[in-house]
Amino acid sequence: MGTEKEFPLKGYSLPMSPQGKSAVIDPPPWHYGGDVLHLTFRADEKKMRGLVPPPLEAGPNPGEGVVWFTEWVSASEDRPDLSFVNPERSQYKECIVMVSCQFRGVPGYYVPYIWVDNDFTLVRGLFQGFPKKLGNIYMTRLHDMTPRVGGKKPGAKVKGICVSHAERIVEGSMVFRRKAEPSEAPPVKFYLRRHFPGIEDITRPDIHEITSSRVVDPKVADVWVGDGDVKFYGSEFEEVADLGPVEVTGAFYFGLGITIIGGEILHRYK
Amino acid sequence: MGTEKEFPLKGYSLPMSPQGKSAVIDPPPWHYGGDVLHLTFRADEKKMRGLVPPPLEAGPNPGEGVVWFTEWVSASEDRPDLSFVNPERSQYKECIVMVSCQFRGVPGYYVPYIWVDNDFTLVRGLFQGFPKKLGNIYMTRLHDMTPRVGGKKPGAKVKGICVSHAERIVEGSMVFRRKAEPSEAPPVKFYLRRHFPGIEDITRPDIHEITSSRVVDPKVADVWVGDGDVKFYGSEFEEVADLGPVEVTGAFYFGLGITIIGGEILHRYK
Amino acid sequence: MGTEKEFPLKGYSLPMSPQGKSAVIDPPPWHYGGDVLHLTFRADEKKMRGLVPPPLEAGPNPGEGVVWFTEWVSASEDRPDLSFVNPERSQYKECIVMVSCQFRGVPGYYVPYIWVDNDFTLVRGLFQGFPKKLGNIYMTRLHDMTPRVGGKKPGAKVKGICVSHAERIVEGSMVFRRKAEPSEAPPVKFYLRRHFPGIEDITRPDIHEITSSRVVDPKVADVWVGDGDVKFYGSEFEEVADLGPVEVTGAFYFGLGITIIGGEILHRYK
Amino acid sequence: MGTEKEFPLKGYSLPMSPQGKSAVIDPPPWHYGGDVLHLTFRADEKKMRGLVPPPLEAGPNPGEGVVWFTEWVSASEDRPDLSFVNPERSQYKECIVMVSCQFRGVPGYYVPYIWVDNDFTLVRGLFQGFPKKLGNIYMTRLHDMTPRVGGKKPGAKVKGICVSHAERIVEGSMVFRRKAEPSEAPPVKFYLRRHFPGIEDITRPDIHEITSSRVVDPKVADVWVGDGDVKFYGSEFEEVADLGPVEVTGAFYFGLGITIIGGEILHRYK
Repeated sequence: MGTEKEFPLKGYSLPMSPQGKSAVIDPPPWHYGGDVLHLTFRADEKKMRGLVPPPLEAGPNPGEGVVWFTEWVSASEDRPDLSFVNPERSQYKECIVMVSCQFRGVPGYYVPYIWVDNDFTLVRGLFQGFPKKLGNIYMTRLHDMTPRVGGKKPGAKVKGICVSHAERIVEGSMVFRRKAEPSEAPPVKFYLRRHFPGIEDITRPDIHEITSSRVVDPKVADVWVGDGDVKFYGSEFEEVADLGPVEVTGAFYFGLGITIIGGEILHRYK
Repeated sequence: MGTEKEFPLKGYSLPMSPQGKSAVIDPPPWHYGGDVLHLTFRADEKKMRGLVPPPLEAGPNPGEGVVWFTEWVSASEDRPDLSFVNPERSQYKECIVMVSCQFRGVPGYYVPYIWVDNDFTLVRGLFQGFPKKLGNIYMTRLHDMTPRVGGKKPGAKVKGICVSHAERIVEGSMVFRRKAEPSEAPPVKFYLRRHFPGIEDITRPDIHEITSSRVVDPKVADVWVGDGDVKFYGSEFEEVADLGPVEVTGAFYFGLGITIIGGEILHRYK
Repeated sequence: MGTEKEFPLKGYSLPMSPQGKSAVIDPPPWHYGGDVLHLTFRADEKKMRGLVPPPLEAGPNPGEGVVWFTEWVSASEDRPDLSFVNPERSQYKECIVMVSCQFRGVPGYYVPYIWVDNDFTLVRGLFQGFPKKLGNIYMTRLHDMTPRVGGKKPGAKVKGICVSHAERIVEGSMVFRRKAEPSEAPPVKFYLRRHFPGIEDITRPDIHEITSSRVVDPKVADVWVGDGDVKFYGSEFEEVADLGPVEVTGAFYFGLGITIIGGEILHRYK
Repeated sequence: MGTEKEFPLKGYSLPMSPQGKSAVIDPPPWHYGGDVLHLTFRADEKKMRGLVPPPLEAGPNPGEGVVWFTEWVSASEDRPDLSFVNPERSQYKECIVMVSCQFRGVPGYYVPYIWVDNDFTLVRGLFQGFPKKLGNIYMTRLHDMTPRVGGKKPGAKVKGICVSHAERIVEGSMVFRRKAEPSEAPPVKFYLRRHFPGIEDITRPDIHEITSSRVVDPKVADVWVGDGDVKFYGSEFEEVADLGPVEVTGAFYFGLGITIIGGEILHRYK
């Protein structure tokens, strides 16, 4: 949307255009439904704290983190049939690394690293404070109909692999043990850093804030619990492996549906 | 596999290697499970006949064809956990164009055109007689958890798009009307042309055969019937749009599981 | 860079990290060298004006536009050997649509639409005001050594194709007529719109400015002049074809080297 | 081409079609022009011999191998302007691993492993005996116009990276030392294994031959000599790293133009 009445171009985001169809992303609410491989881990406490920007504080379980591999079908409130008009505009996969933190006593996870595989989600993420880069995300799919392999069941195995700039960065996997209740799926609250660098004075960002996503109506279904593994790989361009060895403490796989209606600014850096 | 006892390299296909891990594809049996968007159409009868190589004959319903958009999870009997070891080696999408035909009174479909999105399936297809080229295949996914959109239900809409060499080639779509019985899913028998051109005398192929896939244990589930649409787009490198306008006569969406144990040679061109 | 002394994470952009290696893009200066297919065209004057946001004004030749297809090797001042460390981080192609405009009497081009094929350039563009989306950009390469085809010479032909979200969007081509002087290559000054939408109040952007790139040391070499063509294709998600038919008025192909040291804010929308 | 007069479909390869435009590859002659990073290495002699299928014999320098990273512009004799009609159909990159061998006293290189990044070259390679798989190939480009980096000169550095099925497989690099004469570029003669597995009896290939490419009119230009490096990475699906550590013995970068007019069958396995 333009900010002045007479402004001739429309869109929540660039590129704006006469009819507003060109914008890379529609305004919220944004709807998401997908499958999540959720792996909890522990790493060196000091290094994990070092990834959390103040005034966020270390979480109730400092040293704890989460890796998500997810495959989403998303849509905007404005164009709910996006997935039909063009499937490419509505599907993406992502790999998220999270670090336990809290703000004014409310625990959650800060997201230092995240990779996605399409532009609309990359830009939508930047607007919220998700530090997205492009990656190729691969996730095992379990299809009921594949002979000899089949679908979700005890013993089933899934893996997620994240490759970015021709390097393997993250790998996570899980062996299904048992079906679980929706209440067993660990909740996730995202703390983010919204940042847009300066262009005249490149030492002073134009936007630099701690934010939190406004998520409504989360729904969880088809939860499985199992045994997990996480690996971070060394890289010329990523520092996630500098966390050192990690110990996996939990593994979950579930369906998730959420709607994000915007974000909340918790702190503005001066 | 090598053909001589002393042969030091292993593999059903190139590249062969000391341990046999490098081959782009394992030997059959090959297992497939996936979701199929099945659209039946009628086109100009003469043009459709022109795509069927003798001794295959026009089918019982000359002028009838089928478009498939499918998303597969496949595995080989030798490496059933391929989808776990590396998801990338087990998932692919394809768009198939089929023309009604018959051989010695047994009706089926000849496959003049097919696009897939990975190497192992391209080569596995060539070995059987599927004339595969690479394409980007996009298919609507319906996820139960996506708010406002949701999963399979009457009124749900899915689309498949096939892009190859930077051109949109095929588009197919369906609006779900009702759930159906597995027996309503139309069966498909593939007639293929296996061909490997000569390299010394390029006017004489080294292999040129009509074949048929040996499919066992087909299983169908979660069948939906609806209203469909098919479009073929003009191209510098494809002739499918030369079929002219098509009339869509049926639309189905279903889960399919099959195992291919090899192929049968029905005719050898001299 | 962080904005507070004690800030533990480094980087000109997200994702920031302890060592500052993870940021998707380094700070300027940014260096670019590449080949440019530059096509000038005329389209409906009113529609072209409609793409230029005030206070930018229609240019001295209203209705005039430019399409660029470029293939870049870029590097940052901080990591000049990026192209060696990881070629993937330094190469990209882009397709730019420009509309003649002026600001306070200084003519240039406003960029309503642009597609690129990698993340670092997409984000670097957003920071400056280039409304980048991802696309697949294909450009003819003329290699001196290819028998029967060869390199640049009178009669040589090049084409650029831009595909985004599975749709062909722009096509441009040129037949080389003659070698030209560097001074014949048309200069380009970019006017941009920098925009970052609000996340608490989604109707009010946090950044909304007219900017201009600060380009230094432009160098042009190996200029060719020829006869060109431009096509815009209809799309579900792009409006460039709404410009209607275009008349191509010039075609150039040249080597270009530039350094961008940041941007200048010309106007802030309230 | 069909083998019978009345055969209604045209094409050197599948998919054949009424006009013959659909075939994934035209018949030879095939023209190639490109840039080659040529790295020679020595590895464990026994392991290198183990990659050479009899009746090919170990070469005059057993244990010697070559890695090529190349970026090609190719065209067929039938469609010389392919690179203009659709740049995507004429450009590809490849990574080739070669092992020194000889046949009846004529030395050359056997190709156990090769990765390419498009379908037409993959299939064209299979027809000749190149055991091609898909990979993402990245190669440093040196562009004269990039400030601070520039083009080919003493001290310039180039790298090639080959990624396949989400794994980094091969990396090769070179630091340019000096310009050299065309005669210093090492010649390469390819020995290949042509193989097409059986589909009725999967233990007996329908084609299994040792072949050699028929290359005419090779031209070399702009040769540079330097210092090189080669790394093979461990993989779930590749065995090239089983060669163990390699010692790089030479590094060259040059322009190459060739025409392949077909192949010669040297041996047929029974």
